[in-house]
Amino acid sequence: MERVASSFMCSSLLVVLLLLSASRPAHSKVRVHRWDISYAFKSQDCVRNLAVTINGQTPGPTIRAEMGDTVVVHVKNNLVTENTAIHWHGIRQIGTPWFDGTEGVTQCPIVPGDTFTYRFVVDRPGTYLYHAHYGMQRSAGLYGLIQVALPAAQVEPFSYDYDRSIILNDWWHDTTQQLSTGLASVPFVWVNEPKSILINGRGKFNCSLAAANQVCNATSPDCSPFVLTVVPGKTYRLRIASVSSLSAFNFEIEGHDLLVVEADGHYVNPFAVKNLNIYSGETYSVLFTADRDASRNYWIAANVVGRRPGTEPGIAVLNYYPNHPRSTPPTARPEGPLWNWNDTDYREQQSIALSRSHPDYIHPPPATSDRTILLLNTQNRVEDGRTRWSLNGVSHDMPHTPYLIALKEGLRHAFDETPAPERYDYENYDVSRHPPAVVNATISTSIYRLKFNSTVDVVLQNANTLANSSNSETHPWHLHGHDFWVLAYGTGKFDPRRDTSKFNLVDPIMKNTVALHPFGWTAIRFRADNPGAWAFHCHIEAHFAMGMGVVFAEGVDRIGRLPTSIMGCGDSKFLRGRHH
Amino acid sequence: MERVASSFMCSSLLVVLLLLSASRPAHSKVRVHRWDISYAFKSQDCVRNLAVTINGQTPGPTIRAEMGDTVVVHVKNNLVTENTAIHWHGIRQIGTPWFDGTEGVTQCPIVPGDTFTYRFVVDRPGTYLYHAHYGMQRSAGLYGLIQVALPAAQVEPFSYDYDRSIILNDWWHDTTQQLSTGLASVPFVWVNEPKSILINGRGKFNCSLAAANQVCNATSPDCSPFVLTVVPGKTYRLRIASVSSLSAFNFEIEGHDLLVVEADGHYVNPFAVKNLNIYSGETYSVLFTADRDASRNYWIAANVVGRRPGTEPGIAVLNYYPNHPRSTPPTARPEGPLWNWNDTDYREQQSIALSRSHPDYIHPPPATSDRTILLLNTQNRVEDGRTRWSLNGVSHDMPHTPYLIALKEGLRHAFDETPAPERYDYENYDVSRHPPAVVNATISTSIYRLKFNSTVDVVLQNANTLANSSNSETHPWHLHGHDFWVLAYGTGKFDPRRDTSKFNLVDPIMKNTVALHPFGWTAIRFRADNPGAWAFHCHIEAHFAMGMGVVFAEGVDRIGRLPTSIMGCGDSKFLRGRHH
Repeated sequence: MERVASSFMCSSLLVVLLLLSASRPAHSKVRVHRWDISYAFKSQDCVRNLAVTINGQTPGPTIRAEMGDTVVVHVKNNLVTENTAIHWHGIRQIGTPWFDGTEGVTQCPIVPGDTFTYRFVVDRPGTYLYHAHYGMQRSAGLYGLIQVALPAAQVEPFSYDYDRSIILNDWWHDTTQQLSTGLASVPFVWVNEPKSILINGRGKFNCSLAAANQVCNATSPDCSPFVLTVVPGKTYRLRIASVSSLSAFNFEIEGHDLLVVEADGHYVNPFAVKNLNIYSGETYSVLFTADRDASRNYWIAANVVGRRPGTEPGIAVLNYYPNHPRSTPPTARPEGPLWNWNDTDYREQQSIALSRSHPDYIHPPPATSDRTILLLNTQNRVEDGRTRWSLNGVSHDMPHTPYLIALKEGLRHAFDETPAPERYDYENYDVSRHPPAVVNATISTSIYRLKFNSTVDVVLQNANTLANSSNSETHPWHLHGHDFWVLAYGTGKFDPRRDTSKFNLVDPIMKNTVALHPFGWTAIRFRADNPGAWAFHCHIEAHFAMGMGVVFAEGVDRIGRLPTSIMGCGDSKFLRGRHH
Repeated sequence: MERVASSFMCSSLLVVLLLLSASRPAHSKVRVHRWDISYAFKSQDCVRNLAVTINGQTPGPTIRAEMGDTVVVHVKNNLVTENTAIHWHGIRQIGTPWFDGTEGVTQCPIVPGDTFTYRFVVDRPGTYLYHAHYGMQRSAGLYGLIQVALPAAQVEPFSYDYDRSIILNDWWHDTTQQLSTGLASVPFVWVNEPKSILINGRGKFNCSLAAANQVCNATSPDCSPFVLTVVPGKTYRLRIASVSSLSAFNFEIEGHDLLVVEADGHYVNPFAVKNLNIYSGETYSVLFTADRDASRNYWIAANVVGRRPGTEPGIAVLNYYPNHPRSTPPTARPEGPLWNWNDTDYREQQSIALSRSHPDYIHPPPATSDRTILLLNTQNRVEDGRTRWSLNGVSHDMPHTPYLIALKEGLRHAFDETPAPERYDYENYDVSRHPPAVVNATISTSIYRLKFNSTVDVVLQNANTLANSSNSETHPWHLHGHDFWVLAYGTGKFDPRRDTSKFNLVDPIMKNTVALHPFGWTAIRFRADNPGAWAFHCHIEAHFAMGMGVVFAEGVDRIGRLPTSIMGCGDSKFLRGRHH
């Protein structure tokens, strides 16, 4: 009897301690979501096609929370034969590296029939994303927004009347199985340009171009353009995010200047633009005021940039209340900035303009770094004839035992323990030569191990693709588990002896996704202060599938006990029961 | 030291005992196969399309073994996001119920990156199949033949000069994801008729009908008709198998009679046919002699029967050596038997003719049965509005914890423990009424528990579909883990008091797959003598996906320790580590 009582008291004490240790602000909430992931037929661009949906919808529901809240998402996989995993893009997962949702890095895939529970704290205000991080499943429609508000007592360094959001995507008519098989085939089958651009999941394919075996219904409500209704005179915060699989977008609202105030959850030094270039994985907030001729509606457009035009822009409507929301603007649709092989300059200048932090919110970077990793981005052939992307000659291969589990549990042989290469032969490599002198690369699961709390610089270096002509692509690089300072963008080849002088150490913006422009370089700095294993990769779905990524690991000895729910695949098969 | 030695001796003794207990004939071999499962683009019917392949091929390699051999197949799943499982159709898996390869019944799915090893004894000679048993993955191309030869000292009750094989399939241009999503949608989206019929993986879609977004190459070697070259005067054993997803086939070789000698691995009372009806999941051996005009080639054709024609027949060429193998036969392609709504009679008569065992190989059935399960086959609506198939008003839902594991390990709540219904209201149900009086059915994971070594009769009863018109379909039912005696085929409603007198208890053929004809009934008998959990289901891929199956369990207490490789999903997650 005594033992029972004392055991009960111990349990109670434990509960109290656990509650205290959670150390969330007194008013923080737990936001619980229950999601069923399943295929459904949608006509997002008027062509009936399969999409991976959340509770029947694509894009999925927006997760709204307040800074400090805990978000809980119960993900039930109702796909018939496919697994899944969901990444919370921009959420650093401090203390919960196992819930980053990156298959192969932080967890095993969620098999059909299973319910996996993600639980994490949203510790910073701002605009974030979530999306599938498994194969090319993000392309199939599994994505959405996360909006984290400031606590009620705090104010942002700008004001507005209403808060709205837009999420951009590009869309194919082939399935992700077809697309990914093509990319891994010899000879290589490229995904080609998208069939349409989606704004909030709605696009418009020209039904007269539809094939005989396609059902194209131009009047389907699924593809009715998104309408953003505004009240004349009011100021709007518009959150703009992109999960595109390939395309870079130029976003504009006809006749309305946009004041950029937030990028990837950080306050930028406010900067006015006519139009905004946005790369896959980025989020922005812009302010605009509905101060134009209120008797008509206006076009909202997302034009493809950085690649030769050919895809119709994504279109939405800015509707001035009380005009009819379906009243077509009297003007021609915006064409976007004039494209030529050098739209790079314009885009790079805007990247630079948006890379300064709001003066009241500067997080100064460490003055020096402990380590500089140069990452040469190249297109290559590998031994079996496949076309791949590589970093310093290594094309990343995702292992089937997640790195986090392998590292923490000491599973040997789960990945290549040879350190990934720190740099390339930067003195001799000609980044503009075409075709490049070096064609071949190797495949590896190797990673970068970072000293805990060290400061790391990464300089992304672009180069010519395998093309015989002058050709270099834009790569938006996304880092998991951290924000980084954007120190500099440069053109040509980064010179480690000279170009560090160009680094902005005064007021660099922090981001989680940054563009590497054609034939240029981008330098970032971050603190390796988040114990875990973290992907850093090109956010173009096809490029990551072709090996364009690396993995950083830090502070593994500081990671707490892993939840068994992330285990079950590869060499982690037998851990679940042991830990249970 | 002593303990080490004694432990070593014990282990050695164990090894010796295990070797002895395997009790395979002295000359039996272990046949090892290593298979990579991956998607590849193929042009099986001239239209370029994804297929699930084994080592790059569809159909996969034929497994050849001798009776008593052990077949070992190391299956590496190289699909990107999809799991798999492979069933060895017709192999009873005596002593290895865990390697039947039926996802949800005998194993968890094999996740990408994993290698699963199947190991089983082929204990009977004959012609068998293998194919994916997960979602509708069989339709995607994962299938092939198993040929088990008699030991060298034994002879078959027929003779021939050469042994050849043909495997039939039907083929769609939609992916299995599209097909299965349609079947589970509200409103229901039927898969429709196949785009083409494949003979040994080769079909011919009319490229002039191809859609603009399809690549159709009429001269692709992938779709060059299969050529069966014969030497004049020689006699051939032709093994014919069907893995079709929907279609019943009528198979013929122009101008050549076929003597049916084997069905599903058993010797039938030899019966000559002009053409052979073959249902999905069946295998036959026929003998024919190349005794016709040797100056020309002949058509081989597989025409769709049982459904209104509309699909071009599958075509191959019988090539008399030394004619050119591509020399087109001078005659019109065989049309197949004239189709009308009553081709049922002809097919049923052939079923009956082929249901007698070879007189020298009669395995007499037990004279009486211990239990009779009546299974009314109906099309229904379930609560959420989906269209399903049901047995006695219950539509089968596959659980995510395999039955075999749940039963053996005593996992409660893994499935509905309510016994599945033993019969329907056969006195009052009007099987020909249209639309049927009862429209609704319930979904359940319930099963039939069979007394070990008991004799069980199952009478499959057909009925009208949900259609308002008179309509009943052919369902080929396949039993895992057993062969059954085919006792009778009948038309109309089976009357348990009267129709048992029609049972053939003298020389019934044993099979593993049997047709249930429109508006008819089929009675089978089997011994529940194989400890395990076994699926019994309609072999039409779409019908099984819509719930048209049941599960039998018997002798669970006699099952040895389950391999941990089959675990890892649902409630079996935590067993792997415990057993390891």
